[in-house]
Parts: sequence; C-alpha cells; structure tokens
Amino acid sequence: MTNPLTIDAERLWRHLDELAQITDPQVPWTRRAFTERYLQGRAWLRERMHEAGMTTRLDEAGNLIGTLPGSEPSLAPLATGSHIDTVPSGGRYDGILGVLAGLEAVRSLQEAGVHLRHSIEVIDFLSEEPSEYGVSCIGSRGMVGKLSPAMLDFQEPGGERLFDAIRRMGGVPEALGEPLRQPGALTAFVELHIEQGRVLESRQLPIGVVSDIVGIHRYDIVVTGQADHAGTTPMDLRRDALAEAGGLIKHIQQEANRQAQGDTYLVATVGRLTVSPNASNAIPERVEMVLEVRSNDATLLEGFFPPLLEDTRRQLAGSGVDIDATPLSEGLPTQCSPDVQAQIAAAADSLGLEHMAMPSGAGHDAVYMAMLAPTGMLFVPCRDGRSHCPQESITRQQAADGCQVLAETLRRLDQL
Amino acid sequence: MTNPLTIDAERLWRHLDELAQITDPQVPWTRRAFTERYLQGRAWLRERMHEAGMTTRLDEAGNLIGTLPGSEPSLAPLATGSHIDTVPSGGRYDGILGVLAGLEAVRSLQEAGVHLRHSIEVIDFLSEEPSEYGVSCIGSRGMVGKLSPAMLDFQEPGGERLFDAIRRMGGVPEALGEPLRQPGALTAFVELHIEQGRVLESRQLPIGVVSDIVGIHRYDIVVTGQADHAGTTPMDLRRDALAEAGGLIKHIQQEANRQAQGDTYLVATVGRLTVSPNASNAIPERVEMVLEVRSNDATLLEGFFPPLLEDTRRQLAGSGVDIDATPLSEGLPTQCSPDVQAQIAAAADSLGLEHMAMPSGAGHDAVYMAMLAPTGMLFVPCRDGRSHCPQESITRQQAADGCQVLAETLRRLDQL
Repeated sequence: MTNPLTIDAERLWRHLDELAQITDPQVPWTRRAFTERYLQGRAWLRERMHEAGMTTRLDEAGNLIGTLPGSEPSLAPLATGSHIDTVPSGGRYDGILGVLAGLEAVRSLQEAGVHLRHSIEVIDFLSEEPSEYGVSCIGSRGMVGKLSPAMLDFQEPGGERLFDAIRRMGGVPEALGEPLRQPGALTAFVELHIEQGRVLESRQLPIGVVSDIVGIHRYDIVVTGQADHAGTTPMDLRRDALAEAGGLIKHIQQEANRQAQGDTYLVATVGRLTVSPNASNAIPERVEMVLEVRSNDATLLEGFFPPLLEDTRRQLAGSGVDIDATPLSEGLPTQCSPDVQAQIAAAADSLGLEHMAMPSGAGHDAVYMAMLAPTGMLFVPCRDGRSHCPQESITRQQAADGCQVLAETLRRLDQL
Repeated sequence: MTNPLTIDAERLWRHLDELAQITDPQVPWTRRAFTERYLQGRAWLRERMHEAGMTTRLDEAGNLIGTLPGSEPSLAPLATGSHIDTVPSGGRYDGILGVLAGLEAVRSLQEAGVHLRHSIEVIDFLSEEPSEYGVSCIGSRGMVGKLSPAMLDFQEPGGERLFDAIRRMGGVPEALGEPLRQPGALTAFVELHIEQGRVLESRQLPIGVVSDIVGIHRYDIVVTGQADHAGTTPMDLRRDALAEAGGLIKHIQQEANRQAQGDTYLVATVGRLTVSPNASNAIPERVEMVLEVRSNDATLLEGFFPPLLEDTRRQLAGSGVDIDATPLSEGLPTQCSPDVQAQIAAAADSLGLEHMAMPSGAGHDAVYMAMLAPTGMLFVPCRDGRSHCPQESITRQQAADGCQVLAETLRRLDQL
C-alpha cells in the first residue's frame, strides 16, 4: 500500500462552516428538507461537487448524487454520503460531515493524482431527519423501494402530500413503487457520521467502527385508572395510573440495565409521558407514554417488552388499573458488512488512529443502503454526546480524522 | 326531647336545582366566585334568606350572612353554611348543599313554630374553591384574620388584585388585617357537605360525622438529569430523570399504603407531573411534579416526605441525577369539636340514620371556623365519590337526610 492520502483539513473545516451558515437565521441551525433554505444548501453543494470534478444528478427519490468517474467503467461504483437536512434548531455537523467529508475525500484523491478503478458517488440523501410528512430517511428509503404508497400519501400539516413534495424537490415520485437500484448496483457504501453519544468521548478514541445499527421498537403505552379526589380517596380505594406507570418505568430501566450487561447493546427509554387530568389534587386517571427499545440483537429487541407487559398485567389484575400497549414501529437491527468494517479498521490503523467497534444507537441512511450494498459506517466523537441541538460540537481535528479514514477506506475498497 | 323536626325535602331539592341552574351555560356547572354569574347566585340566595325570615348582610370579607334572631339576644349565635361558588365545570352539590340545607333548616324551624334561644346564621362564604387569585377559602380566612397582606396583593391573570376583587364583591378589604370575629363570637359552627369520596357509599351509610379535617403538605419536586439521545446513550452513561422520578412515585405510594394501615388517615398523591424535553427519542432531563400529603395526624403528616427525600438523595448520590423539593404549603390538621361531633351523632341516632366517624380528606371553610368556635362537619355520600365535575351526583334522599341531621343538630346545640 502507498502512504495514506492527506486530505485538506482546512478546506473541510471551511466547507462545514459555509454550509452550516445556510440556516434559517432566527433559529440556528435549521435547514429543513423541502424548504427554500434546503434548496439553497443543495445549490451550494452542487457547486462544490462540480469544483471537485464530479458530475451531478438527482435520482427519482430526490437524492443529489455527485459522481467521479473511475478508470474501469464496468465496476459498480463505490458510494459514500449522508444528508444535509437538519432537525429544527439542530447542530452544525449531523449529516453534513458525512457529505462534505466524502466530497473532500474525492477532491483530495483528484488533487493527489490518485485515479480509482471504481467510480465514486457522493450522495446527499433527501430528508434523513424526521420530516413534517411523518417519515424519515425519505431519500434512502426511496432508493431501495421502501417508500410505500401509504407513506407517499402522508401530508404535512399544511396539506401537501409527500408525493408532491418529492416532485417539488426534483424527484419522480411515480417511479418510487420499486427499488431504483438493485443489489449489486454499488460495490460498497460507507457513511461517516458524528456519534451523537458519549462512548468515544468517554474512552478518548477518535474513531468508532460501526458493527451494526440498532433496530427500534416503539410502543404507545396507556395506563388507565380513575380520577378521584386526592384528599378524600383513601389509599385502598385508589386507582392511581401514575403510581403504576412510575413503577413500570423504573422497572423498565432496571431490566434494561440488567440485559445491557455484556456484549450486546440494548437501551430502553420512556422519553414521552403525559398525565391527565394532571392536577395536584386529582389522582391521575390516565398516563400515556412512549417506550423506545433499541438493540443490535433482534432477539433481545423483540423479547424485551412483551414479558414486562405481561408481568405488569398480572400485577395489576384486580387493582382497577389497566395497561394497554400498541406497537408504533418494529424496525430490526442492521448488520454492517464485516468486509467494510475490516477496511475501515485497517484504514484507521494505517493512519495511527485508535478505534473501537461499536453499535450505532441512532438510525441512519446506511440502514437502507445495507439492503443494496455491503455497507459500513464510521463515527467520530462529538462534545458531551450532544446532537440535534445548537450545542452540537466537534473539533477540526475530529472532522479531519474521520475524513482521513473515510478517504483511506474508499481507496482500500477500490483495491479489493 | 321533642320529636325530630321534619324538613321539606321537596323544597330543598328544588332549591338545589334552581341555584345549580345559575351556571355559565356553555360549561355547566360553573359559578365562579367574583363573576357576574356568582352575584346572580347570591341575589337569588338573598331572596331565599328573606323568604325564610332572615336578615342579611355582607361582612368585611365578602361573606353573605343570613341571620334568624333567637329568643335570647345575649347568646352568641349558632352558625352553619358553606359556599355557592364552584370550580370550572364543577358539580351541582359541592358547597351549595351546605348553604341551602342551612336555609331549609331555618325555614323548617320557623314553619314548625320552633323558636331557638340562639340566633342562627347561615353563612355563604366567599370563594371557597381555588380562585384565579391563587387563594381558596377567601371568606372564611378573612373572617378569622388569615388573609395576609401578601395574599390580598395576589393578582388574577388579568391583573386585578384580590384586595380590589373583595371590594367589588361588597367587602371592605382594608378591615382584613385582623380577625373580624373573636373566639366566643359564635356558640358553634356546623357545616354539611358532600363527602367527595367513596367511603360512605362503599359502606352504604347515609351520614359521616367528621372527626377531623386533614392537614395538607404540598411539595414541588424537581428531578434533574441530562437530555441525551435515547438511542446512542448506553444505559450506564444515562442520567434519566423520569426513571428516577417514576421509582420515587411508586415508592411514595407504597409507603403511604403502609402508613395508612390502622386508625389514622394518610394519603399521598403525585397528581401533577411534567417531563422535558418530553420526546420519545430523548432521555428526560427534567421532571417537575407536585406531591400532596394529607393526614389528620400532624406527626405523620410532617414526617412522611422528609425521610423519603433523604433516602432518594442517598440512592441518587453519584448517579448524576439530582432531586430538589420545595414546600408549597404546610397546613396542619384541624380537630372537630368532640361536643359538636356528639350532637351530630345523637341527631342522626334520633332520626334512625346510621353514621360513622371519619376524617375529611378535603379542606373546607370549617378549617378556619374552627379557630373561632367549636366546629363540626357532617357528610352525605355522593355517587362514585365523584366531585368537582359535572358527574357529581347525590339523591334527593341523601340531601334530605343530611339536612334533617343538620336541623336536628342545631336544635340540640341550642339546648345545651
């Protein structure tokens, strides 16, 4: 192998800043998919792709794809990328780091005179973040045929259908009934992203090699009691929905702590909860809450909540408090390609950057790309694990390390 | 003793209905203190008092007082009454039963030609329910000098001070710095009220003789953790405010269940709780909740929460989750007069009505009247214990039984 490629850390850092500045000025950092601001960001990105010698196109799902032709046109392209949309009042690095590091890798390869055999695509996936249409990962789902007609029919609060919004972004929604690309159409896909957690930071490691991406099961849980007067109802005549919900939440935490011991990743969170009537002198009649379970182990994921629910039902039998749970989503874990993982690890080693294997606890476009091609992800740390908020922060060195490993990984995948 | 007095159950029932119908028509049953609707209710009540041969006056605290003169003017009056204001969308009996039963008792005495030695006052206390000014029991507090200058300065959301609102109701707020009446100014005070709980109903008893009125301690509890990503933060790096709050709520319930075993009354309720950021994919950073503890035993009341708080603090030490609690109110229990209780019980016995001694879990104007005179209360059942809601319901017989016992109690107190 030749010496690792050196990317231009200064240019990458400047590009991150320039794209982040394309934000709704009152609520930094906001560049919501399907808005004028978003199109402004894409216009800026298209120019940068052209500067790097790439051709650009929009696919039918509204993904912006920059391509650098390889020397052997018969080979399926290598692809990298992520997304440039943000949540409202989000951060400056979530998504755009993966797109701009891909761009920088291509440009550095060009400038170093390195000609790859494979074409390289840098993909800016449409609307990865949860959108006003109720769907996330719109572009990557669309690419692999996972945007159902029902999803395309979803409307944002103003009444526009996702179908029409995709057309407005330059896509061809009529074509989205089936996969736009078949397995084998890409040689591999690699995505660089900020970790959005504190694992790398707490271990002081610059690179995480993602082993798998968690599946997510969400449940809507409703606990129903009776709204009696909090003063006049003796303890033995109460049906207190919140006391029972509280016990269940604590029990979920303890059980997740127990099952998370060991190698597999499992987290369980009740993040959203509302009480009614929610008055200090009324016994809570109804608690509605959302439980989110994430794991990279499908058996653990699917087996976590049902027995807890059964236990709770048994305990509550005859108490006058009822519990019901409705599954909201049941996504399975995604395994990253061992080959791609090995190349990412080897790339980091060749650059002298320490790394660890770790699951991704967040969903990414890579989940859908894994249906199409051998897929891998790498993470860089972010400060305090903060993400989806203006405090999201990484250092220039962390960005450069990630980009360096991404470029080196692409070069290694090209040589396989 | 002569035979018990017979009240006019039909008239009482009709009066209850007539006054209940004076409601904001869109949101039955609503007759908020300090409104035009409330004044309309009072005008109706004043007419009924005059029909019953009573003189009427407003005292400096805005209480409407009807007086039937007794045959021995040197004796301090006997008093009864309650309130005619409601919570928003409240019930048809809370408060007005005590006022109209007092009125009916007086009228029946008149019609039966029974002349009591003591004058009898029927008091409609101003604004017993929690008001827009942040204070409840405004009239009864005012009567005993417990409306502080700070309270009089409280403003409703529109900016009016309680001081000015009391003047608008016909009171003289400047006079409220000290008690309007001194201990000894009344011979006794008796209040009839619906139970607002399910104890009498569950035991199928028509009359409850109130032994004491609970004291109420309220605490604002804030649990603070950190709002990390619910997917990317492993269980051992979390600071989940809701999981800890949930455990505490369950623990409070268990401890209250344990301490409520036996003769003393104790209830503890977390009725109000808010989570932030309250998103399904964010670990809860902050939970704010109100704990209400009520007991008729001052030692139990004051000793309930502090050790639980200390235990919780100890358990959370080093976990990164903090807990803070601020007392919001610390009212002590009120003992009802043993003499008045004995007369209520004897009156019920003489009418062949079964009764039980029981604490009041709700606060009442009687709490403040007990600072002024030997005070007692009696309860009648209400359906399913529902109160403060349109479903609040009693039968004509239950109302009549309560009124009958009240009238007989007044007659007995007159003869002591």
